Amino acid sequence: MSKKETLSIVKIGGNIVDAPEALDAFLDDFYRLGGHKILVHGGGVMASKMAKQLGIETKMLNGRRITDAETLKLVTMVYAGWINKNIVAQLQKRGCNAIGLSGADANTIPAIKRSPVPIDFGFAGDPDPGKTNAAFLSRLLEGGVTPVFCAITHDENGSLLNTNADTIANTIATACSRLYQTILYYCFEKEGVLKDLNNPDSLIPAMHRDEYEVYKQQHIIVDGMIPKLDNAFKAIESGVSEVIVLHAKNILNGKGTVLS
Amino acid sequence: MSKKETLSIVKIGGNIVDAPEALDAFLDDFYRLGGHKILVHGGGVMASKMAKQLGIETKMLNGRRITDAETLKLVTMVYAGWINKNIVAQLQKRGCNAIGLSGADANTIPAIKRSPVPIDFGFAGDPDPGKTNAAFLSRLLEGGVTPVFCAITHDENGSLLNTNADTIANTIATACSRLYQTILYYCFEKEGVLKDLNNPDSLIPAMHRDEYEVYKQQHIIVDGMIPKLDNAFKAIESGVSEVIVLHAKNILNGKGTVLS
Repeated sequence: MSKKETLSIVKIGGNIVDAPEALDAFLDDFYRLGGHKILVHGGGVMASKMAKQLGIETKMLNGRRITDAETLKLVTMVYAGWINKNIVAQLQKRGCNAIGLSGADANTIPAIKRSPVPIDFGFAGDPDPGKTNAAFLSRLLEGGVTPVFCAITHDENGSLLNTNADTIANTIATACSRLYQTILYYCFEKEGVLKDLNNPDSLIPAMHRDEYEVYKQQHIIVDGMIPKLDNAFKAIESGVSEVIVLHAKNILNGKGTVLS
Repeated sequence: MSKKETLSIVKIGGNIVDAPEALDAFLDDFYRLGGHKILVHGGGVMASKMAKQLGIETKMLNGRRITDAETLKLVTMVYAGWINKNIVAQLQKRGCNAIGLSGADANTIPAIKRSPVPIDFGFAGDPDPGKTNAAFLSRLLEGGVTPVFCAITHDENGSLLNTNADTIANTIATACSRLYQTILYYCFEKEGVLKDLNNPDSLIPAMHRDEYEVYKQQHIIVDGMIPKLDNAFKAIESGVSEVIVLHAKNILNGKGTVLS
C-alpha cells in the first residue's frame, strides 16, 4: 500500500477573523503551509456585532448560540457571505486557489437538526456521521483547489443549520482520513494546552489519551478545554493522525500541544 | 467533430428571489430543466431592504448600485450569504447537487474594478474578458454538480466587487461556448420582448439582430430593454447559441423572445 498524502485541516476562531492584522498574518502563513489543506473558520464575534447592529438579541447557552430564524439569516450572511468570501479573496490575492463552501454546497456536510429536547437550540445542526462528501473534497484538492469552510451546514430538506466550527473541522478531518493522512490544527488564543493558564511556559508539548485522563482527574485541564480535547481524541480514535492545539501564529512551526 | 453538449445558463432577478412562492415554483422548474445548467441570481430587492434595516443609504445611478465599503459588505452578506446558500439548500432538497459560488471562488470570474471616471461606482467590477475559468465550471458540470452564482466577483488583489447579474450570466455563457452549446435564459417580469408593454399578446417570438435594429429605430424597443438586448446580441456574436428573454415561469416550455 502506498503512503497516503498529507492533508492539513486548520480551524481558526472568530477572534482572528475579526482582527484584520492577525487574519492577514495568519493567511500569509496558511498560504505557505505545504501539501493539501482545508481552512475552517468561525465568526461568532462578528455575528454578535452584526446582531447588535440589527437589533437581534444574542442568546448563548453553554457557549453555544441559540439560532432562531432571524439568527440563522444573520449567521448565514456573516459566516457564508462576508467572512467566507473575504477570506477567499484574500487567499486568491496570495495565489492560493481557494473556494468558499458551506456544508450545503455540493452536499459536502449534511447535518441533523439538533433535538429540541432537553434544550431547543433552534436551527443548530450536527454533521451526519459518515455522510460527509470526502470524494468531492478530494477532487477539489487534487485539482489544486483549497476549500475554505464556514460553519453552516444543511439538513438535506431545504434548511440551513448553524454548526460549531470545531465540529466542522473534526468532521472533515475524520471523513478525509480514509483518503489522506490528516493533521488537524485547532488554533486558539493560547500557545496550546497549558498546565497553568497564566503561564505560557507551562505548555504541555505532547499528550496521549491516558495522560489527558490523568490531567482531567487532577483538575489541571478544566472547563472549555475539556469538550475541545474530548472531540480531538475522538477524531484521533476515528482515524485522524494528529491533532495540534496551538496559537494561530504557530501553524508553520507546529509549536503547541500535539495530541496523538 | 462531435456535437457539443447543451449548457443552459439561467438568470433570475431580485424580484423572484424575494418572493418565496415564485422562487419555489421557479426552483421546481429549474430542477426539471434537462442537461447541464448553471443558475445566476440577483438580489437587489433584498439588499435594499437590508440596507434600510442597517441604516445604510441605497444610492442608485442609471439603475446601478453605487457600492461603497459598507454597501459591499452588505451585498456580499445578502447575495453570497443568505440568498445563495438558501437557493443551494432548496436545490439540494430537490436532489439537484448545487454548489454556490461567487466569482472569487476558485477564481471563476476575475473582474476589473470600474474606473471612477466619469462616475465613481465604488467597489463595482466588470468581468475580465477571457479570464473566466470555464475549465473549472466544466469539471463541476461533468461531475454532476450545478453551479449557482451570485453577482459578486473579485479583482484578484484581495477586493470583492459588486457585479451586474446579467453581466455575470453573459460572461459565463460566452466563456463556456467553447466547450458547450450554450443557451442563455434571461428571466424577468414580462413574457418576453413586447411591442406594447401593456399587451402580453404583442410578444415578439423571435428576433434577429437586423430586426432588433429596426425595432430600435421605430422606438418600439426602448429604455432598459436596450442595454439588456445589446448585451444579449453581443453574447450571440461571441459564441452563445441562443438567448431567450422570458418570464421565469416559462423556462421549461421556452416561450418568450428567442434571439439568434
